[in-house]
Amino acid sequence: MSIQVQGVQQSFHGHTILEDLNLTLEPNKIYGLLGRNGAGKSTLLNIISNRIRPTHGTVTLDGESMHDNDHTLGKIYLMSEVNMYPERSRVKNLFKTTRLLYGGFNDAYAAKLVHAFGLDINARFGKLSTGYRSIFKLIIALCVPVDYVFLDEPVLGLDANHRELFYQELIETYSDQPRTFVISTHLIEEIANLIEHVFVLNDHHIIVNGEVPDILAKSYTISGPQTDVEAYTANLNIVGEDHLGGITAHYVYGALENDRPIPDTVKVDHLDLQKLFVILTNTKEEATAYVN
Amino acid sequence: MSIQVQGVQQSFHGHTILEDLNLTLEPNKIYGLLGRNGAGKSTLLNIISNRIRPTHGTVTLDGESMHDNDHTLGKIYLMSEVNMYPERSRVKNLFKTTRLLYGGFNDAYAAKLVHAFGLDINARFGKLSTGYRSIFKLIIALCVPVDYVFLDEPVLGLDANHRELFYQELIETYSDQPRTFVISTHLIEEIANLIEHVFVLNDHHIIVNGEVPDILAKSYTISGPQTDVEAYTANLNIVGEDHLGGITAHYVYGALENDRPIPDTVKVDHLDLQKLFVILTNTKEEATAYVN
Repeated sequence: MSIQVQGVQQSFHGHTILEDLNLTLEPNKIYGLLGRNGAGKSTLLNIISNRIRPTHGTVTLDGESMHDNDHTLGKIYLMSEVNMYPERSRVKNLFKTTRLLYGGFNDAYAAKLVHAFGLDINARFGKLSTGYRSIFKLIIALCVPVDYVFLDEPVLGLDANHRELFYQELIETYSDQPRTFVISTHLIEEIANLIEHVFVLNDHHIIVNGEVPDILAKSYTISGPQTDVEAYTANLNIVGEDHLGGITAHYVYGALENDRPIPDTVKVDHLDLQKLFVILTNTKEEATAYVN
Repeated sequence: MSIQVQGVQQSFHGHTILEDLNLTLEPNKIYGLLGRNGAGKSTLLNIISNRIRPTHGTVTLDGESMHDNDHTLGKIYLMSEVNMYPERSRVKNLFKTTRLLYGGFNDAYAAKLVHAFGLDINARFGKLSTGYRSIFKLIIALCVPVDYVFLDEPVLGLDANHRELFYQELIETYSDQPRTFVISTHLIEEIANLIEHVFVLNDHHIIVNGEVPDILAKSYTISGPQTDVEAYTANLNIVGEDHLGGITAHYVYGALENDRPIPDTVKVDHLDLQKLFVILTNTKEEATAYVN
């Protein structure tokens, strides 16, 4: 039981977007899909959802191809950044249409969310602000009866209170009715405690693919006087560095050498997910040269 | 030398958006304009920029009305959330047009920013992602030679690295060439150290208008056993509360009574700007009843 992305490659007009991508999405798990602007996150989500056909490679659900397969496609839903709704349609009518398309649409939960977020269902879609367009789309995504929900920038334009509400509701609906969520977002710190597994897409490849606690356990800031820091990190996987006053910080991604004692002058801290992401995906050559 | 918004009131189709709004924007200062989704932030910025005429009230720059006044309007620029650019125009041509409109457009700085953000100037505007549309618009906003720059959601869709870059560039260009920036954003924590003065728009009114350090100095979390917390905060301006296990937290906005000792069981911390915002603008009656 899983979605398998195998050897997916995607080019547009001679530009490579994704190269030999492989990943597995297991049932009932919350994933984060992170990447820079233009890294190809939306392209990947569109490929998995059969909205774009990859140049090469396959996507399967429980072993069945997902290409134009009504059976498998009925099990997934993509909340896309693109606005595919007619501008003049009223929100309540768009809910009705969705209800017809999805037999088991959760009406009661949708009504609760409409009230909690203060969405005006009489408004025309085209008149909604960026934030309320996102709210409308995420309500649908949380209420469709599917096994895999893909959320592309679900909190785009949402205020802080609405973002908090969304994260709470996501946890609640996931507990009530476990299914898989894949969240693509630029607000990494806000979802760091919510996602179990993270993919980082960079330079056409997945450069991080692992459980969040495992990833964070091997992400370090080593700081102190430059010579001491350099001596200690000499054989480690340095992915970035900073200098401030007389202090040097090396960022290390990978195991420390436990048999080597840490000098008293050197401080070892863990990185948070957003900082790790920024370091690993920095375009400066020195910051990415050592990524593995 | 300032922009004065006086008695501004705005209604659309019988709905009140803004009510008797008064505020001053001084030269060479960075402001934050915060508010919930739908609070009317964009409406206010559009009124100040003469794109919308208010139902009542006036906006003046150095005493001159800004209504259809070419002289004063040449001194302000609004980077709007709305995409007003033709979808089929190439980015480089849109830069050319802007250059023709604004004599002193900073070409060298624009070229530097295009490179730093990795913006493809040969792309058509309509083909840019949400993040790159924001990047294009904010490059223009940072390079036009005006005294007042209004940034409506400048980091919408930007990844973490690009957001950091934008904040750094904003500080640099502001130091090089001081002018006034008004930043409207939902990512409050990220701009908390950048803005000097904050306006919070809620329920048609400005409910917070002050220097950021002053605002934070009088924003407190008082936590501890419920009875002790309640006894201490009895006469204070409680704007919200939380309960977790046996611990109660009261959020207080306003001065503490310095003559009253804080009990040993009670902990007093300061709130950060985002948390204060969430508490003050919460729609729950109990959270806003005491706001002043």
